[in-house]
Amino acid sequence: MQSTIQIRVRYAETDQMRRAYHANYLIWFEAARINLMREYGISYASLEKEGYYLPVVQAHVNYRSPANFDDLIMIEARIEKQPKAKITINYQVKNENGQLIADGFTLHSFMNEDGKPVRPPQRFTTIVSQNLAENKNAG
Amino acid sequence: MQSTIQIRVRYAETDQMRRAYHANYLIWFEAARINLMREYGISYASLEKEGYYLPVVQAHVNYRSPANFDDLIMIEARIEKQPKAKITINYQVKNENGQLIADGFTLHSFMNEDGKPVRPPQRFTTIVSQNLAENKNAG
Amino acid sequence: MQSTIQIRVRYAETDQMRRAYHANYLIWFEAARINLMREYGISYASLEKEGYYLPVVQAHVNYRSPANFDDLIMIEARIEKQPKAKITINYQVKNENGQLIADGFTLHSFMNEDGKPVRPPQRFTTIVSQNLAENKNAG
Amino acid sequence: MQSTIQIRVRYAETDQMRRAYHANYLIWFEAARINLMREYGISYASLEKEGYYLPVVQAHVNYRSPANFDDLIMIEARIEKQPKAKITINYQVKNENGQLIADGFTLHSFMNEDGKPVRPPQRFTTIVSQNLAENKNAG
Repeated sequence: MQSTIQIRVRYAETDQMRRAYHANYLIWFEAARINLMREYGISYASLEKEGYYLPVVQAHVNYRSPANFDDLIMIEARIEKQPKAKITINYQVKNENGQLIADGFTLHSFMNEDGKPVRPPQRFTTIVSQNLAENKNAG
Repeated sequence: MQSTIQIRVRYAETDQMRRAYHANYLIWFEAARINLMREYGISYASLEKEGYYLPVVQAHVNYRSPANFDDLIMIEARIEKQPKAKITINYQVKNENGQLIADGFTLHSFMNEDGKPVRPPQRFTTIVSQNLAENKNAG
Repeated sequence: MQSTIQIRVRYAETDQMRRAYHANYLIWFEAARINLMREYGISYASLEKEGYYLPVVQAHVNYRSPANFDDLIMIEARIEKQPKAKITINYQVKNENGQLIADGFTLHSFMNEDGKPVRPPQRFTTIVSQNLAENKNAG
Repeated sequence: MQSTIQIRVRYAETDQMRRAYHANYLIWFEAARINLMREYGISYASLEKEGYYLPVVQAHVNYRSPANFDDLIMIEARIEKQPKAKITINYQVKNENGQLIADGFTLHSFMNEDGKPVRPPQRFTTIVSQNLAENKNAG
């Protein structure tokens, strides 16, 4: 269960080391994560309207090679395991030559509007389990 | 009616031109604006809890001289005119030598939670008119 | 002389007013400006490699209607006048329905690596004057 | 070897979940890291002028409790181990009540202007080893 987005590194995202500033990778991870959900029929905007939030409870990034201004980079987001109380999403960032320049993961909890932990919405877990099963069968 | 904050330019705020990225000045303006309100007894956080929002409807910045990483800069926010439907706030950014490096203004409307324009809260206009009057008398 | 890019509003770009934070419009303007230059054969990344920089000396934004998380918005950048020592770029931001949600401009100087003002590169002024002339003739 | 800075959460740093956006913690970590170095006599700005850079090669954050707009938060940066080719810095973020709201670490390499890995500057390792030794003796 995966999807990839392409992003062009903005001037605003560079720092005086002349590369993309490291905190931006978390923002790119998020854009890839929201796109992944959209491609599998789950609009994160709708989830919030239904009262579900997915705050980040853990984030990790390995920076392997710099991304530079105006580079076209690919960010792949991937769900590998069925969510329980929490869900892990994995990421790979590649440059135009397909070279891995960063990877990492985010761990999310499901939360309601009052900030209380809740179970993931049924629709969400169903979609994930179906897609992980298909993938396994296909594999 | 004015107040000044001091900010240290963050590495995250630089770009590959080796200076503070221009959009950050709007963020610094905001920090100065919120501090101005706080110093005059108006917590912007409380205003929102009471259902008032002050979205920016116009913003203008003149960049006169760069701000660099680790510079200590001063941002002054100033209210000069009584708010009606809208309120203008003026800003000056100075470096440690007192040199003006940027100035500008933001124009804000008052809005309720539904996004509808509303009159400024009574408490707000009273505080502003008292302080502008005192200033005038003192002047 | 104009070009338009499409951007999806990132979660990172929202604030607690539940809309895109106002400073991001300057970042979107920039993405549109760099794309405009690219489409007319001027890579801003190459300009910098040749020793030319285009710092922002003035920026102005009118916010007309909010942009929200996950919205697809269009940002048009437009050059209307031949650059002299400085160049003005105009912007319009529209939502998916074609509604104007913001407009503004940035004014830029040309600068060398030492931060000194310089004339715009010959190649740049030639491309702009050719395209403005064609446009006028076509009009 | 540690130091703590105080930061007020900016409106710009919130997102529509009505809390500080998660990528900002990396920016706060950095502000604390640069302050730590400054307090021990190492200006990061000077390091760069001498041709040393400390890019982030790994970053990790555990988000334990949200930070909200206008909160005053404390960020502690700490060096616990002598740097070799790389240096680890640990962080703790606390709210005004002293409650731990996040922690994490960043791992940095030392790099020259050409992006090649280099040994940490002698001055840097000396300062760290002296302070770690004193601490150990004091402990």
